[in-house]
Order: sequence, then structure tokens, then C-alpha cells
Amino acid sequence: MKIICSQKKLSTAVNIVQKAVSTKTTLPILKGILLEAKNDKLKLVGNDLDIGIEHEIDTKIIREGSIVISSRIFGDIVRKLPDSDVEIDIDDNNNVYIKCGHSDFKLVGQPALEFPELPYVEEENTCIIDQDLLRNMIRQTIFATSQDETRPILTGALIEILNNNISMVAIDGYRLALRRAFIDTDIQNKAVIPSKTLNEINRILGSESDGNVYISFTDKHILFKIDETRIISRLLEGEFINYEQIIPREYKSKVRVNTKELLNSIERASLLAKEGKNNLIKFSIRDDFMNISSNVEIGSVNEEVAIELEGEDIDIGFNSKYLLEALKVMDSEEINLEFTTSVSPCIMKPADNENYIYLVLPVRLSK
Amino acid sequence: MKIICSQKKLSTAVNIVQKAVSTKTTLPILKGILLEAKNDKLKLVGNDLDIGIEHEIDTKIIREGSIVISSRIFGDIVRKLPDSDVEIDIDDNNNVYIKCGHSDFKLVGQPALEFPELPYVEEENTCIIDQDLLRNMIRQTIFATSQDETRPILTGALIEILNNNISMVAIDGYRLALRRAFIDTDIQNKAVIPSKTLNEINRILGSESDGNVYISFTDKHILFKIDETRIISRLLEGEFINYEQIIPREYKSKVRVNTKELLNSIERASLLAKEGKNNLIKFSIRDDFMNISSNVEIGSVNEEVAIELEGEDIDIGFNSKYLLEALKVMDSEEINLEFTTSVSPCIMKPADNENYIYLVLPVRLSK
Repeated sequence: MKIICSQKKLSTAVNIVQKAVSTKTTLPILKGILLEAKNDKLKLVGNDLDIGIEHEIDTKIIREGSIVISSRIFGDIVRKLPDSDVEIDIDDNNNVYIKCGHSDFKLVGQPALEFPELPYVEEENTCIIDQDLLRNMIRQTIFATSQDETRPILTGALIEILNNNISMVAIDGYRLALRRAFIDTDIQNKAVIPSKTLNEINRILGSESDGNVYISFTDKHILFKIDETRIISRLLEGEFINYEQIIPREYKSKVRVNTKELLNSIERASLLAKEGKNNLIKFSIRDDFMNISSNVEIGSVNEEVAIELEGEDIDIGFNSKYLLEALKVMDSEEINLEFTTSVSPCIMKPADNENYIYLVLPVRLSK
Repeated sequence: MKIICSQKKLSTAVNIVQKAVSTKTTLPILKGILLEAKNDKLKLVGNDLDIGIEHEIDTKIIREGSIVISSRIFGDIVRKLPDSDVEIDIDDNNNVYIKCGHSDFKLVGQPALEFPELPYVEEENTCIIDQDLLRNMIRQTIFATSQDETRPILTGALIEILNNNISMVAIDGYRLALRRAFIDTDIQNKAVIPSKTLNEINRILGSESDGNVYISFTDKHILFKIDETRIISRLLEGEFINYEQIIPREYKSKVRVNTKELLNSIERASLLAKEGKNNLIKFSIRDDFMNISSNVEIGSVNEEVAIELEGEDIDIGFNSKYLLEALKVMDSEEINLEFTTSVSPCIMKPADNENYIYLVLPVRLSK
């Protein structure tokens, strides 16, 4: 294999596929990046067996071929090369010669044959979604996925496409985050995606320009196509929780409040709450204000926030962490909080639309 | 004590004095910040017994007094309060009431009497130096202080004021960094300042505007006055190395080279060098270029840099880390490298002035 390509493009490609390269793996070949030169394209591939990422760049190919190179060393070198053309040449003994400007590197590669192939996902059962929308759907749900490996299905987020609607849902046993959107598609599908995959997709989306994402499904895998990048992930197996059943349809108290003000007050209250157990803060909701308080050994705090209350007064306790994480991803200026009793779930929604629902369980207050 | 002061000023003050608050200390009172309200000033003090930092702000004082508050909690609260007036009120039981906007905090403080007093430094033996100059002197020497506690004196930098010259010198056994400048002063003095103190001063300088620093000396302590901040540090005891003797006055080869080009090439070469022993790189200096190379198990690298050579060709090896750290603080576009033999020190200097000298020992090359 012998190619010439721009350092900028190569560096971008390496940064993307490195997200699927594991540093801790028992299979040494997986610490490498596969380079494959064919048909005027250089394809780079990273693969940790859970996620595989491919990225293609247009390249001048002098001799087709392929090789696996240490991801860490190759990445460090490519990033540090000057902004110029890079020549990569491989000899018959898997030696890799990298030339750029006045720099000459020689590295020892590994045969491409040993690199595990990515699962094949036919681009048939495919829907198209806006990059920005996908980014927001992930941002607004991923923090509510479970960290607890004893229920593996909850360590991922459910993606559900039904009747031109797309939903993403995460549940960890204490809260539920549900983001919905309209989508123009004929397909119907359901899949639970590992949170690690969603994280990597969000990082790749973050660095890419606007445009479309093509999502394709098989029984065991999902493929995201973002510009020149293909991300193939395994899916989590098993049945997800029937989330619709969990969400209460009625409430006794409804509070309308400014998102930023509530966030700031809870952040301050949690400075003391985190010194105690469960980050416990207490809401005392009255006519036109709510009092947020926390009492711990080293001190106490009281915060007052202006609200509009519809319904009954209520006193209720929460783990402040669970409120903060949701408030930080709320895009609307005002939100509604819905309560039934001090031991039943609270619902948090944007005041101006129905596309996001966050449910959180209260913490029982000691009398 | 009862005071009212702006959140912005209080937050700045806390950020500064917190640099002298130790999180790991056997004396619990030292985890606190001393607040002292007197004569329309609020003084905040942090003290870890090595360094003490005081910062004063203009404040409306309703009742004079003093208290010690947990630095971590108080700092977190002050930073999160809204940009408004903060009222701090202390009762007879050392309870601290902090009010700001719709926030009310109550914390348990400790009596100010238990807080160790800072050493007294008379502002008599004092010189004045530009903030920007001091910042650069520290930046260009501090990385060459020793990490080895078996020779404590070398874990600090020598500051020497003599005949209207100020020098700062650091030596760690492998290299020496010396920064000199003109200073308009009558005093003469010598002191070895712990690198930790210099680090904190640099952080405080970094966040302050331009202006003067007042430096005062006693036998055991040094005082830096920067605007409203006073930093008092103990000095290291013992005799510093007679550094003038170490610096060779002659050379056989002198190389003039572009700083940035040399830095970039060594950075690339060190990507492989760091995979081997001692970060070893080799310079082969010839007529109008130098070759920088490294050979390790996983590969090799060759870099070529254009130079102007005066004197003899030379081959010499270095720990690339020691070259990189100095090249990163070189402010001049071009530098001179001076060599005598492949086993004697190399001198690195700016090409256009004499105010900085960096000496580094070579690594012996195996034949």
C-alpha cells in the first residue's frame, strides 16, 4: 500500500475512529487502527467489538493495500505532523513509512487480515434524522441511563420509531427521561443502544457540521451514518421497561417556574445537601413561591423561588442530583412540575411544548 | 461581626486566598479561611504554614469581628451566589449567616483566635518589580526546580538581587535555568523560594492586571505584595549551588536555529523517544542542517531542521523532555545552541538577548 493524503484529513479521520479503539483489551490487534487503501479512498477503522467506527477520505492511491498500526502512536504522530501532504508506504514486512515535510517515521505494523471485520448492516431498514435533533435527544436522555450492570438493559437507551414519531428513553430505577420528536419515515423499529455508543455518537456529532444522520437497524446491530463516518454498534438484548405505563397522567399540584432560577437555587442548596445523605433537599410549595431547603450537620440553607401554583400546597423531598441533571438539559425558559403526593413521582416538562418528559422519584422525608 | 460586600469581590478574594488553604492537613482549623472585619476592610486569610495569603476588600462594616469558615464550603457558596450584595453575620455561638438575594445559608464557624497568625514581615527591605517580568521569570525557571526531596534546597528557585540586577535560578542536577533582568533598586538580597510558592504566585499574577509587585525579605520569610494581595512564604534554608561556576564560557560549536521548528521536530521525535529509555534523542549536527533521530523497539524517526553552524560538526544525545520544557518558554524567534563535546553541557540562549540561559547535560550515546 502507498498513498498520499492531507495531514488535516488524516488527523480528523484518526480522531474519529480512535473513539472505537480500546486501550484496555486482551486482543492486541484491537489497539490498532486498520488502514485500507482502495478505489481512491483510504478507509480507517477502529473496533472494540462493541462499537466499530469507519471513516473514509479521498486519497491519492499509488498502490492499494492495507495494514494495522498502533492507534496511540499513529494518532500522536499524525496530529503533530505539519499541515502538508503525508505519504504512507508499506513494505512486504509490514513496515510502515510515514513521510511529511522533513519528518520520516518508520513503524512496525500488523497484517490487516488479523483485524476483526465489522458486522455487516444492510442499509435497508433506514431512517433519516437531523444531526442537531439526534444530538439533543441523546443529551436529554443519556444521563438517566443506569450504571448498574445487574440490569444490563437499563444501561442503554431505548430508541423507538413508530407512526412518524421517534422516541428516546432512559430509565435507571429512580428517574426516567423521554425525548420525542416527529420524524418523516416509513419504518417502524425498536432497539436498545448502549450508552457508550450514544456517548461516542454525541462526540462525533459535536465535531461535525449540520446535516443528516442515516440510522439502519438489524436484529443485533445499529448503524449510524454521519457524513463520511459509519458507526456500527451492537444492541442490548432483552425487553425494555414498558415506560408509558410508568408516567402518571394526572396530578394534584402544578408548578410553573423559571428554569434557570430553579437550577441556580437547587445548585446552591445542593452545596450543603451533598455533605449529607442522598443529596437530600426539600421543596415546600406554597401559593406563589417555593422554599428549597437542606439541613446537614455543618449547616443549613433556604432558597426561595417565585412560582405559579395551580392546585394544592405540597412538601416533598428529592435527591438534588437527579433534579440538577435534568434542569441542565431543559431548553425552555420555563418548566412545569407536576406532583400528586409527597411519595409519588414528580414530572418535569418544558412549559411550551410536549417533546420532553422527565420523571423523578421523591425521597421520603423523615417527620 | 456583620458586613455587606459585593459577591464579585468576595468571590475573587476567596479564589485567591484558597490557594494557601491545604485540603490535607492534620490541623482542622487550617482547612478554613479567616475572615476579619475591621476599619471598613474585610480581610480574608488562608494559611498552610508554608504559605499564607491575605486579601483585603473594601466593605461596609456594620459590626467588626472575625471568624474562621470552612474554605471549601464557603468558597463553593460564594461562587454560586448571584451577582449582588452579600450579608455575612456572625452570632455569639460562631454561627455564620450568609444572605444574598433569595438565598439564606447558616454555617458553623470556628473562633478566629485558633487560627495561626502569619509571620510578620516588615516592609523595609523591599524592591519593586513589574508583574509581567516576575511572571516570565517564574515561567522560565520553575520547571527546572528539583522534585527530589533529598536535596531540599534544589526544590526551590534562588532569587538574587545584586547591583540593580535580579536573577532567578533553578537547578535539578540535570539542567539549570537562569533568567536575569535589570531592576531599579538599592537593596541586595538572596533567598531560595519553594517552587510551590512560585507556582501560587504565578497563578495569582495570571489573574491580576498589570502593575507592580513589592517584594520584601527577612531571614526566614519573603513577602510578595500584589495589588490587594499579600503572599508570605517561608524560605528554604541552606546554601544554594554556586551556579555561575557551572556555566561554561566557551564552546566549539554554535548552532543558530528557529525555535518553533526545533520545538516541533523534537516534539515529533519524542513521540517515539518516550517509548524507550530516558526519552533519548540524538542530534547529528552538520553544515547547514541538524538531524534529530530516535530509535526504539516499535520504530524510528528522523527529523531534519535547517541551521546555521559555526564551528565543528557534533553528534550528541539528550533526554528530549529537558529540551522541550526549555524550548516552550523561549520567547525569541531564534535561539543559539552551544556545544563543546558530546559529553559536556549544552547551552541554550535566545539569539537576540542575554537575559536567559538554559544549560542541559547530554545523555551518553552508546557506540
